[in-house]
Amino acid sequence: MDFKTLISDIPDFPKPGIIFRDISPILADPEAAEELINAFLDKWEGKIDAIVAIDARGFVLGGALFRDLSVPLVLVRKKGKLPGACTECAYDLEYGSSVLEMQKGSLKPGARVLIVDDLLATGGTAEAACKLVLMQGAVVAGCAFVIELAGLGGREKLAGYEVQSLVTYE
Amino acid sequence: MDFKTLISDIPDFPKPGIIFRDISPILADPEAAEELINAFLDKWEGKIDAIVAIDARGFVLGGALFRDLSVPLVLVRKKGKLPGACTECAYDLEYGSSVLEMQKGSLKPGARVLIVDDLLATGGTAEAACKLVLMQGAVVAGCAFVIELAGLGGREKLAGYEVQSLVTYE
Repeated sequence: MDFKTLISDIPDFPKPGIIFRDISPILADPEAAEELINAFLDKWEGKIDAIVAIDARGFVLGGALFRDLSVPLVLVRKKGKLPGACTECAYDLEYGSSVLEMQKGSLKPGARVLIVDDLLATGGTAEAACKLVLMQGAVVAGCAFVIELAGLGGREKLAGYEVQSLVTYE
Repeated sequence: MDFKTLISDIPDFPKPGIIFRDISPILADPEAAEELINAFLDKWEGKIDAIVAIDARGFVLGGALFRDLSVPLVLVRKKGKLPGACTECAYDLEYGSSVLEMQKGSLKPGARVLIVDDLLATGGTAEAACKLVLMQGAVVAGCAFVIELAGLGGREKLAGYEVQSLVTYE
């Protein structure tokens, strides 16, 4: 299936000049969604011990994947959203910076972790998620995205990690 | 399984005097997570045509459920997070108000919809999600939550709809 035909291109969102690539139509199509999730399962089955999902659309993918893989699901969110003691990592945005958090003790030392999100753009968020995984003594097995915006250098920022994306835009 | 034994109680989060009930330990336990999701599947299988998941932890549950039920998954988010034309609904918070959005045309008229979120507290968010479903001409089949804080009146706010919660705190 060519997922690109299902992805909506919405111009000038969230700001002028940006084309937002929206996976909502895939989620709304049970057959397409099944094929999408299976593409991730085929790649990672037996190779990971935990999934780390990035807020918020990554939660959909994490929720869809972790049961089939029988592994723990761990959430990564912007600072202040997770309760309890957290490991945190700052990362740069286009303007300014932000902080991602993961609850302490979420990952077992040595656990092979798959990081999931809907979209790989500049890679800043995914890179911070990788750092949070490493700070807990776990291992980044790879990063999986539905969409990769190849021109923004995200894959280079994740050099050294296996990166899977199902749809690429130049 | 008594899910309550797995839920973390975190005092004074997000603010003093509030005990945050955190389902993260359930998501981190594959056996418990499987039983949790099955409790929802057993209840709703064959009775719904779509799932509406509320940002952000509801996305985990929606992602886990929609494939097994072979139904579309539709996301509800705070205003400004979803691209394209949206239906919106304002709702009251403890202080002030907020606006939830759903993309226009997300639900077929007459579709029986299950709304999912991790927690039912005052019910303001879930009630707004119900209204968004109705504004698209669809039908609220029910609302499902992991946790219900019974003292806050959420169930009363959703009177007329079937409400499932797996764990109740007085």
